Parts: sequence; structure tokens; C-alpha cells
Amino acid sequence: MPKINAERLLNDLKTLRSIGAVETGVVRPALSEKDLEARRWLKQRFEEAGLDTTLDGVANVIGRSTKNGPALIVGSHSDTQPRGGWLDGALGVIYGLEVARALAEDPETSDLAVDVVSWQDEESRFYGCLGSRSWIGVADSEVEAKATDRDGVKLTDALAAAGLTDVPRARMEEGRYVGYLEAHIEQGAWLEEAGEQIGVVTSIVGIRGMTLTFEGEQNHAGTTTMARRKDAATALFKAASRIHEEFPKHAKPTTVWTIGRVSIEPGAASIVPGYAELTLQFRDSEDALLDKYEEIVEEIVAAINAEGRVKAAATRNRTPVRPSDMDDGFQQHLAAAAEKTSPGKWRRMPSAAGHDPMVLVDALPCAMLFIPSIDGISHDFAEDSHEEDIVAGCQVLADAAASILKTAQEKS
Amino acid sequence: MPKINAERLLNDLKTLRSIGAVETGVVRPALSEKDLEARRWLKQRFEEAGLDTTLDGVANVIGRSTKNGPALIVGSHSDTQPRGGWLDGALGVIYGLEVARALAEDPETSDLAVDVVSWQDEESRFYGCLGSRSWIGVADSEVEAKATDRDGVKLTDALAAAGLTDVPRARMEEGRYVGYLEAHIEQGAWLEEAGEQIGVVTSIVGIRGMTLTFEGEQNHAGTTTMARRKDAATALFKAASRIHEEFPKHAKPTTVWTIGRVSIEPGAASIVPGYAELTLQFRDSEDALLDKYEEIVEEIVAAINAEGRVKAAATRNRTPVRPSDMDDGFQQHLAAAAEKTSPGKWRRMPSAAGHDPMVLVDALPCAMLFIPSIDGISHDFAEDSHEEDIVAGCQVLADAAASILKTAQEKS
Repeated sequence: MPKINAERLLNDLKTLRSIGAVETGVVRPALSEKDLEARRWLKQRFEEAGLDTTLDGVANVIGRSTKNGPALIVGSHSDTQPRGGWLDGALGVIYGLEVARALAEDPETSDLAVDVVSWQDEESRFYGCLGSRSWIGVADSEVEAKATDRDGVKLTDALAAAGLTDVPRARMEEGRYVGYLEAHIEQGAWLEEAGEQIGVVTSIVGIRGMTLTFEGEQNHAGTTTMARRKDAATALFKAASRIHEEFPKHAKPTTVWTIGRVSIEPGAASIVPGYAELTLQFRDSEDALLDKYEEIVEEIVAAINAEGRVKAAATRNRTPVRPSDMDDGFQQHLAAAAEKTSPGKWRRMPSAAGHDPMVLVDALPCAMLFIPSIDGISHDFAEDSHEEDIVAGCQVLADAAASILKTAQEKS
Repeated sequence: MPKINAERLLNDLKTLRSIGAVETGVVRPALSEKDLEARRWLKQRFEEAGLDTTLDGVANVIGRSTKNGPALIVGSHSDTQPRGGWLDGALGVIYGLEVARALAEDPETSDLAVDVVSWQDEESRFYGCLGSRSWIGVADSEVEAKATDRDGVKLTDALAAAGLTDVPRARMEEGRYVGYLEAHIEQGAWLEEAGEQIGVVTSIVGIRGMTLTFEGEQNHAGTTTMARRKDAATALFKAASRIHEEFPKHAKPTTVWTIGRVSIEPGAASIVPGYAELTLQFRDSEDALLDKYEEIVEEIVAAINAEGRVKAAATRNRTPVRPSDMDDGFQQHLAAAAEKTSPGKWRRMPSAAGHDPMVLVDALPCAMLFIPSIDGISHDFAEDSHEEDIVAGCQVLADAAASILKTAQEKS
């Protein structure tokens, strides 16, 4: 089986880290100058690995193997958060490159086709997962036309500034691929806390978002008796507390929910609030639980309305993200490879964060592998992983890619 | 006993209302052009009533009776909220003027000394109760030097623009006064709900303000398990709910508490809040209950800290306002006068809003009278009262003023 080159892997990761480096982190948002510089460097590096490489109309970097299929496409994204960590998407892109190189160098696997990719804008500067959406043909042209970053810069202007307006977009070649593999840092602390090295992702959790509004009556905080008040904030606190009481009754250890934003109006010490609003988000690998939580929220809202004091309402504030199941067969290949490299130090686990496979799963079987994040930190300059885990994860991915492709060859 | 002139009273109120009128409300913040115009008109009107009138260095308008003491000083303030109601302070100022005129016109009371006043900036554009503080010599020159309105305009600049910098400030003449009387709209709905016409104020409630802070750990709302979270907002919701559970156990029907301002940081749907803050205010006529509430807040904060997840703290965010007891003797005069004009339709009650007697009570016996507010509304363009209540209130105040001064004469 192929042997990855740890030194080459780490050197490539460090070179990529240097493009847009700020302190210990990386600032390389989609279509920024540093993002484009990184993608041009990746294109060159993919070509040096013998891949036919395209930088397409959204700046996806796609390195195509010269071997015939069945092929795997392996990678992640090289754009970052506004103040991102050095590994996040970069790890999976360089893993893909190293897996392609390692398989090509081993006579036993040199005939296997591994394409490598860095998708564009996974981090939603303009339009989350634009690159993978574009590649499978589900990017929405109306959304693209309106998309802006948080400073109001338009996606279309950023593409034009990068000289990409008339560059063709790469599209998935039907029939070529057996599937997509992506490795990523865990971004949580399950593996580290358990002393484990590899996570085999079972699914990417679904996400629902709701906004709860409370309409009361603004009033003087001295002269309005408690009995007469229609205090929107009090209703909000009650709803929030009820959510935190009810949700745990149905939660798995991996289920999460967050009230991340609250607004109280007019927001003055001496005025009884007339309006209040909160933003609730919840994630789980099972759609049925997400449905249940929406029902619980509706019940809490109904109970507040039944009191007849404040008018409450709950509405979805985002298109629901359905849980994305990773391919069972691929999971078995990853599990076998993990057991070989890290015997007894791996687990199956859901991904609590979103990734390009949420999009790609509609077109291809997908699988993901996690390595531990130090202190569970990500989307932060402090994000890091141990070198031995980085190396082990790449070896597992290479072994799994080889066995997936061997199996596919045997079947075809 | 003196008979007030209802038509003259209502006409003066309507003329004052026209200065700074906006829709059904009045915009006459302290030291604005309209405030100064109103005060110059009041000065003229006081002089027409035979009072020696001064517009002093903070634009207090003080009309001094030519009669010897013992004197009462009767009035309120003519400055308004940024979008104020037409009666608020104006009612009490014109009542004072009408009481002085009515007593002067009646041979039986024409020897009684009633001074009339409109205090400056009761509504805290720059420095709450500046006028009454200045008059009794407790205005803080350091506070004055730093005071600005919410747009950053300095008090000292506003006084200079009004040509008042070198105008002397009136000071209370020691020995002249038996006390201070002020009438006001209730600003609440106790009287209206009971079908009553007069409130005899027993005390002005004390006010305490606290800021509760919650320091947790900002984190990814997907990958951070519930077990690992240090969610500052969740702690805030718990504290708020506990306040709303515990405070009612000790409350009187007139006790009030308000959480009027909340801040959650960083305030994003996908981020576990790392910091949260709320502003709590509570008011009651008994200092002991306010002490108890501070203790309860400290207990709630301690319980959250004991959980060891989020670091909570509570601090006072304003100088406590102590409850101000109104003079018992004056209350009896007001009660007797109320029973005469509105038999069976008056009550003793605390004032839940602040007024100049909170300041003046340190220098003089004070008393207050309320008339009903329609729907309990104040500090709003919709503020209003029924004309029969306006007339009745003024008659009660005149009768009480006469009997207080007669009694004082008999004693001296």
C-alpha cells in the first residue's frame, strides 16, 4: 500500500500557510489577493505532481489525473475565515495532493486515478460552497448576482477583479467518479478528550435556524405596575429558559443548540421593553430530532401567546440544512485504514460543522476523515494540530483512497 | 376658601402647550429655544399675577409673593422629554400660578404667601433636577462641568448660548418657607382603574440600578458540545428568569423591576456567546425591600458562579435614589382637601416616577398630589388627562395650600 511522504506533506502545508499569514493564523478570504495567490501556487504544485490542472471561473483549482477512471476526487478548500486558522481547509487540499502523489509513486497503486481539488468560498465570504455548487451545477445564478461580502463587496465584482468573468467553470464529468473524499481538522474536542487520532465521519449534521419575536408594549419602568406590563423581554427570557430546559430532554451527546443573538427594544434602563427578538440555531445528525425541536419551539411560543400578554412568533430564519449521510462503504474503507495506522484510537462520529460534502452528496458518494484539533479550537488564529496526527491522518486517507479505488476497479 | 378659575387655568395650560407643540405632544427640552421661550412667557405671566419674578442662572423661573412668610413654594418644571406629553411638568407649574392667583383674589387668603416656580431640567437632558439642586445649593459643580445631553452638547455651552453664564442663581431664602407642594399627572393607571380623581403621594419610590455581567467563552456553535460550553447568554437567561421568579415573592402591588437592556456578544447565530450583560432597575417606597432585592441578585450571581461555568458579577450602575417620604402633615391637608372636592374618590399612593421633591425633601417638607393619566400614558405625545380632573386637582391644591398656610400662621 502507498506510503505518504511526511516531510513533503508538512512542507507544502507550511508553504501554503505562508500565503496570507498573520501572526499564527491565515487571512485568505475567498477571491482576496492572497486567496488567488494561494490558488496559483496550488495549480503549479498540482501540475508538478503530474495533474492536468485548471483554475476555473470561480477559482476552483482542479487537478485531474491522467489515469482513466474510476476516479476519486480528494480535497477541500483553501479560502479561509476573515481571521482563520492555518489548517482548516488547507489540510484537506494538501492531503489530496499528497494522496495523489503517494499513489502515483507506488507501483501497486500508480494506475489509480486521484483528482485533487481546492473548492472556492466554502467559508461563505460571498456564497457558501460556491465552488462545489458550481462544479455539480447547483449554484444559483440569482443568488450569485446578489451575493456580497459583509462589507458590501459584490461577488460579481470580485470575480471580475480577479479576471475570472469570462473564464469557463469546470463541471463534474459524468461517469468518471466513484466518489469524493475530504479530510479536515475536527474543530471540536471529542478526539482529543478521548486520546484518539482519527474520526470517521458518519454524517454532517443538519442545521435549523429560527427567529423568535416578542411584541409587547413599551412603557415607563416606574409607573407601569407589574400587573399591567406587557414586557417583551420577560417573555423572551422565559422562552429562552424553556428552550434550555426542554431541548436536553431529547438531546444526544452530540446535539447542540445556541441562542447567539438577542435584541431588546428600545434598550433603556428605565423603559419596559416593547419588542424583543432572539436567534436560535440547532444541529443534529437526525432530521427527526430537528423536527421535534421545531415543534418544541412552537409549543413554547403557543404557551406564551396563551398567557395573552405578549404576542410571540417563531419563524425559520434560514433554509434548513438536512443532515448529509456519508457513504457507508467509504466509511468502512476509512475505518479499516484508521485501524491499521491508529489501532484502537479512532471513532465514528458526526461532523458538527458544515463542509463541501453537504453540497456534493447530492451528486456523489462522499466521506470525511477528521484529525484532532488542539483544545478543539478552530476559526481562530490559535487553531492547530499535532504533526503526528497530521501525518497519520494523511496516511489513513491514502490507504482508504487506494482501497476504495482497488475495489472499484475490481467491480468494473 | 379660595376658588380657582378653571377657564384661566386651562387657557394658561393651552398657551404653554403651544410653545414647542409637535402633533399632540410638546418638544421643549431643557435650555432649548422653546424651553427658554416658555420660561420667558411664564416669567411675564407670573409678573401679571403680582409675583416678583426672576429667571435665574439655570433658567429656573421663580415668582416670589410680595406677602411675608411663612410661605409655600408651589410648582414643578416646564422642560419636557425629547418627545414629551403636554401636561407632565407643565401642569404643576400652572397649578402653582393659579393657586397663587386664587389665594390672592380671596380676601380670606389674600395675605398668604405663595411663591411659584418652574424648575430647570427635571427631565435630565443634562443633569436631572438641576434647577431644584441649584436652588437648595446641592448642584455638583464637577457634574455640571462634565454634563452633556445625549448628542454630546455640553450643559455649560447650552447655558452660555442662553446668555445665562453670568446670571446669578436663585437660592432658597432660609426661614421663609413652610414647605414645597407639587402636583403632577400620575403617569400610571392606579387612579383611572379605580375611578378615582386624586392621589395624595405618600413617598417617591427609591430606585436602584444594577448591571449584571456574564463572562463565558466564545466558541463555534456547531463543534462545541453542550457539555463543554461556557455560554454567557445561557447564564444571563437563567439569571433573568430567577429574578422574575424571586422578586414577586417579596413585592408589594406597587413594587416594580425592569430588565430594560441586554447585550450578547459577539451576537451571531453561529457563535456561542462569550459575554453577556443586562441592566436591572427596581423601585419601591421602602429602602429595606431594595436592600433585599440587591441581596437576592447577589445570591443569584453566586449560584451561577458556583456552577463554575460562567463568571457572573453584579454592580450598582447608578447612585441609589433613596425613597423620599412626603410630609405627614401636608398629606393630611391634601387628604382633607381631596375629600372635600372628590369625596371618596381619592387615595394615598407612592409615586413610582422621580420628581424634584426627591431633591427638595432634604431642605424642606414636601408633598405631592396626582391627578389621573388617561390610559396611564406619559412621556409620550399621547399623554392626556380629563379637563374635570385637571380642574379638580387644582382646587384641591389651592385648598390644601390655604389650610397649610393658615395653620402655619396660627402657629407662628
